[in-house]
Amino acid sequence: MSTLTLELRTRIENTIRCLTVDAVEAAGCGHPGAPMGLARPVLELWHSHLRFDPQDPQWPLRDRFVLSAGHASMLLYSLLHLFGYELSLDEIRQFRQLHSKTPGHPEFGETVGVEVTTGPLGQGFAHGVGMALGGQLTRARFGRDGNGPGYHYIYGVVSDGDLMEGVSYEAASLAGHLKLGNLIYLYDSNQVTIDGTTELSFSENVPQRFEAQGWHVQQVEGEDFQALHDALKQARENTNQPSLIVVTTMIGKGSPKYEGKPDAHGKAFGTEEANKTKERLGWPADQDFYIPEDVKSYLAETIDRKITERKTLDQKLESWKSSHPALDLAWKEARNPPPIENLRAILTEGMEGKADATRKHGAAVMAKVAEQYPFMVGGSADLAGSAAPALLKNTSAVGIAAEGDGERFGGRNLFFGVREHAMGAITNGINLDGTFLGYCGTFLTFSDYMRPSVRLAALMKVRTVFVFTHDSIFLGEDGPTHQPIEHVDALRSIPGLTVFRPADGVETALAWEWVLTQAQGPVAFILTRQKVAAFQRSENFDNSLIHKGAYIVQDPSEGNSDLILLGSGSEVPLLTDSAALLEQQGYKVRVVSIPSLELFLNQPEAYRNEVIPPNHPLVVGVEAGRAESLRIVMGANSLIYGINRFGASAPWKMLAEEFGYTPSKLTEWVLSHLKKA
Amino acid sequence: MSTLTLELRTRIENTIRCLTVDAVEAAGCGHPGAPMGLARPVLELWHSHLRFDPQDPQWPLRDRFVLSAGHASMLLYSLLHLFGYELSLDEIRQFRQLHSKTPGHPEFGETVGVEVTTGPLGQGFAHGVGMALGGQLTRARFGRDGNGPGYHYIYGVVSDGDLMEGVSYEAASLAGHLKLGNLIYLYDSNQVTIDGTTELSFSENVPQRFEAQGWHVQQVEGEDFQALHDALKQARENTNQPSLIVVTTMIGKGSPKYEGKPDAHGKAFGTEEANKTKERLGWPADQDFYIPEDVKSYLAETIDRKITERKTLDQKLESWKSSHPALDLAWKEARNPPPIENLRAILTEGMEGKADATRKHGAAVMAKVAEQYPFMVGGSADLAGSAAPALLKNTSAVGIAAEGDGERFGGRNLFFGVREHAMGAITNGINLDGTFLGYCGTFLTFSDYMRPSVRLAALMKVRTVFVFTHDSIFLGEDGPTHQPIEHVDALRSIPGLTVFRPADGVETALAWEWVLTQAQGPVAFILTRQKVAAFQRSENFDNSLIHKGAYIVQDPSEGNSDLILLGSGSEVPLLTDSAALLEQQGYKVRVVSIPSLELFLNQPEAYRNEVIPPNHPLVVGVEAGRAESLRIVMGANSLIYGINRFGASAPWKMLAEEFGYTPSKLTEWVLSHLKKA
Repeated sequence: MSTLTLELRTRIENTIRCLTVDAVEAAGCGHPGAPMGLARPVLELWHSHLRFDPQDPQWPLRDRFVLSAGHASMLLYSLLHLFGYELSLDEIRQFRQLHSKTPGHPEFGETVGVEVTTGPLGQGFAHGVGMALGGQLTRARFGRDGNGPGYHYIYGVVSDGDLMEGVSYEAASLAGHLKLGNLIYLYDSNQVTIDGTTELSFSENVPQRFEAQGWHVQQVEGEDFQALHDALKQARENTNQPSLIVVTTMIGKGSPKYEGKPDAHGKAFGTEEANKTKERLGWPADQDFYIPEDVKSYLAETIDRKITERKTLDQKLESWKSSHPALDLAWKEARNPPPIENLRAILTEGMEGKADATRKHGAAVMAKVAEQYPFMVGGSADLAGSAAPALLKNTSAVGIAAEGDGERFGGRNLFFGVREHAMGAITNGINLDGTFLGYCGTFLTFSDYMRPSVRLAALMKVRTVFVFTHDSIFLGEDGPTHQPIEHVDALRSIPGLTVFRPADGVETALAWEWVLTQAQGPVAFILTRQKVAAFQRSENFDNSLIHKGAYIVQDPSEGNSDLILLGSGSEVPLLTDSAALLEQQGYKVRVVSIPSLELFLNQPEAYRNEVIPPNHPLVVGVEAGRAESLRIVMGANSLIYGINRFGASAPWKMLAEEFGYTPSKLTEWVLSHLKKA
Repeated sequence: MSTLTLELRTRIENTIRCLTVDAVEAAGCGHPGAPMGLARPVLELWHSHLRFDPQDPQWPLRDRFVLSAGHASMLLYSLLHLFGYELSLDEIRQFRQLHSKTPGHPEFGETVGVEVTTGPLGQGFAHGVGMALGGQLTRARFGRDGNGPGYHYIYGVVSDGDLMEGVSYEAASLAGHLKLGNLIYLYDSNQVTIDGTTELSFSENVPQRFEAQGWHVQQVEGEDFQALHDALKQARENTNQPSLIVVTTMIGKGSPKYEGKPDAHGKAFGTEEANKTKERLGWPADQDFYIPEDVKSYLAETIDRKITERKTLDQKLESWKSSHPALDLAWKEARNPPPIENLRAILTEGMEGKADATRKHGAAVMAKVAEQYPFMVGGSADLAGSAAPALLKNTSAVGIAAEGDGERFGGRNLFFGVREHAMGAITNGINLDGTFLGYCGTFLTFSDYMRPSVRLAALMKVRTVFVFTHDSIFLGEDGPTHQPIEHVDALRSIPGLTVFRPADGVETALAWEWVLTQAQGPVAFILTRQKVAAFQRSENFDNSLIHKGAYIVQDPSEGNSDLILLGSGSEVPLLTDSAALLEQQGYKVRVVSIPSLELFLNQPEAYRNEVIPPNHPLVVGVEAGRAESLRIVMGANSLIYGINRFGASAPWKMLAEEFGYTPSKLTEWVLSHLKKA
């Protein structure tokens, strides 16, 4: 094994710097400053601390690396390439180009070795907290004798921008509260943001802030790799606190012109400065994407060493497996749950014809799911008493259950505190690990607080279940601040998010069945606070139709319908009641329930046209909210019966009158339009 | 003047407690715990510190009171009633009822004396920071000799829930950075949240946290009103730091059963416990909404005292006015800006036929507006270099310009840091004051981070201008995390928010003219990063039509159109180019620009039908985003040409090809549909 001399170390760092400069230069844009400033500390981390196997990026015992400062993507791409991951130099040459594996910000699923999509500031920080929590949950269940899975660390790099975002404080607060000793972040303290120096807007005492939140804080000079080495060791040894290591760096290090300046942050240097940088770093100016041979050969040895280290750990894992066959099986099954026989029957049992708030249907179905899936974990943002993700029974609260590390994470109920944004990110982080099915919930109106995390779940195709209750003005007296109007439409607009707004217990059960058997990304449940009447589906109704997203609840006893009433959730019984009134007036009415617009849009045209014939005389879309998104499937002759103003504070039945959500009000309105037409 | 004995003080506090219990009991729901626990400290604040005149709630020199813990609304309603505001006991009897002035959470504009809508946690905290900043900006301009306006304080009550929300950390960080010495918050530390005690999820060292953010922190026992008195005095005297006073309270104080328990938080006690509470407090159990005569008569004196104090301050103000007539006039004009002659001509000058990024049009128009409106202030979330709200010229950065209190707030450029959520709330807070026109901006994709604040602006009808740039996949290489897809639709779904997506400099200018002359609520600008080609409107085009939200850009030279191409922003030149191609194929095409869907929806049906005839053969809606919201105005025969997947990292022209936003791709697609139809 060769020795890593200071000279060689510096050459590897300069390789990262020059690859970055070249890639940004080739793209004509990008963020060279942070990779250049971070080259030394992050090389130290990857070289001497981070546990990984580039040939098996999914190795479950690997440490996870989170680049929260996602704009520094070239740092990560350089490291992935240099440390032998499947990311060729050609891909790096294609930095920020269409269909390359080197997009502007690191994207989970696009590039091998990228553990989480980052870029929107603060998100990586909070997702990493979830990944650390996932590790602790794993360890508590499987690794409790010191071997077995879950003993990896989550390392990350966070920037000034990350630390200014509210989501990072929320996540840090919970990480400190839960004493996540397996979380270690390097804070890239370079005193520079896009607009200038941090003096313009950021003067916190960062160490004191993190100490106040229960973190272990150390400070090192970024160039002092030995100090960082020691700090990382201490951070790992402190198993009872998450760690922040403040690393003082110089943005753009190596560039004669931009070093230490805000201009280093986010633009290509231009040929002249790129060449001057290479010259200063002792690099050949005439070679792009140059990697010295000694760097290559040394890193080849390093990769071998990493793989050898892996084998040692795998041997321990094998011995754990043979001494804990039941745990080993459970761990396998958590990661690849076997199909559950009669799942649908189990979930729908007792749900037919039952009047209740759909949040209560939700809680009832979730209790069944939790029984079937012992590795389902989750909770709410301080609303366990009223939101649908009620506390799971026969399990405890994560973090405070009892003394001792294992016990603290043996429970399944998460108390996120009033931290919706971090809750979403942390739940995504738990799910990224692949061992647990994490869910989280709050009132629908507060989905606004966590949209950036919901969006990232969709972008990463992570199966996080978001449970949003109190789904309309009918939450009542809490008034307009708490009454969602636009939120269902706003969630439906996020690509890749499947939204369910079930109308009764059966739809709720089938939606959960879909989550467990078919979902390839995040799902949002939209559930009522108020009790919803039971309604009858047509005779011999096949529950599978619910998975088609929309279906015919009832049709006129004979002949074609004059109009279709289409709606979801609490409005479906309103539609069946209104249909009865309209039929008394001689109109023939079809009622369609649409629990999931997205699933319906995915159906073949034939089915869609069967449910909503394209040239049907009249289709009325009804939801107690904006409801405009229903137009997508309604065809030519459509009317929306929705709400486009804010709600009001009052008992919900008064609001139903006030906003026209009673059978008589809706019928009257429909009749007035039928007469016009 | 009578003396406030301990006994009398306690009786006033118990009046607040029993009014709360009765109101919650009458409503059958509500949040009694916090008002009962806070009665003593907040009475001390209102009685002996807060400067106000109940007969003139808009008195500009008043202190502002922010109940960030908005669920404690009965605390505020009780105080407003007891201190002589126009809020009758009958209104309190109607707590949480339809059309009452006592909604579940305090709502700005609904109830006299409510300074800001609160309830969504953390928002009051952050809005209060904006109100304090508004005060400092006022003081720096007008009150610099110690008299004049802007010397009031912002007092607030914040709860555990507020302090867990990320937005409170963001706002606190900026408040500390800006040294807002006129901001004083009482932290209601009752150790209880909805789910149980704060042990479940919140174990920060709150004093240390606020010290780390530059705040002056004191701690008092809630029952020790003398200590609070002193702490408030010290907080006021510390003019160089915002103040947090940690006040230890007992939730539900007075209730034998619920005192100190999570159950006190959010439900009616029931008749039995309500009666027992009254009994314990020495209150007649048979009287609801009881206010003892001695309480009434003492408070009548107090109100007189407050009004007398006001008169003294008004005299000082008068003397300031006479010695500073120019400042007085400027202050008046800031609050009631006189119409600007030729505003439209000024704003549109040089904008016609100019190809540029619409963010640059935005910056150019804003520079003109800033010249006309010296009290326009704002900034961005660390994107001054690239977002549209570029730095205003000939003015300085707020907070760091120079030494000395006045100078620090004499500038107009705000550096919010990477804190989008707080930025929205703080800008609303500045605007609530009524002196300044506050704007703020970031990339459109990050509008997700600040939705709760945008929504509150809409709910409060506050004229905050949100400038969102980089409005589509065409921001290019930063990739899908940074490329908005759903955001325009999601913003359009918020009731009361007017969204402008201008296509060129003229539309941008007219949109700003509308903001300055007609807006009654918040406005969002949606602007491109990339350069947009100039396009020609029809001859003799009347620019006023832009205020109608949509208008005909061009029509076929003769005959009726076969199809209408409808779109906004960067897609309008795409539509005119595609129209030319389609006309070569023999189709007659109308092109409609729709800079504001909301304004168009507000037009009389006749105009709407003129622009988009209801049974037109085909209307194609085109936006480089979800675009589904356009359906609302498109009529029966409509097709959407939008994007319902995430974007990609690549140069924008590559993305235009990839996603089909070129004249030839769009034309091809339209032709394929024309052939089908």
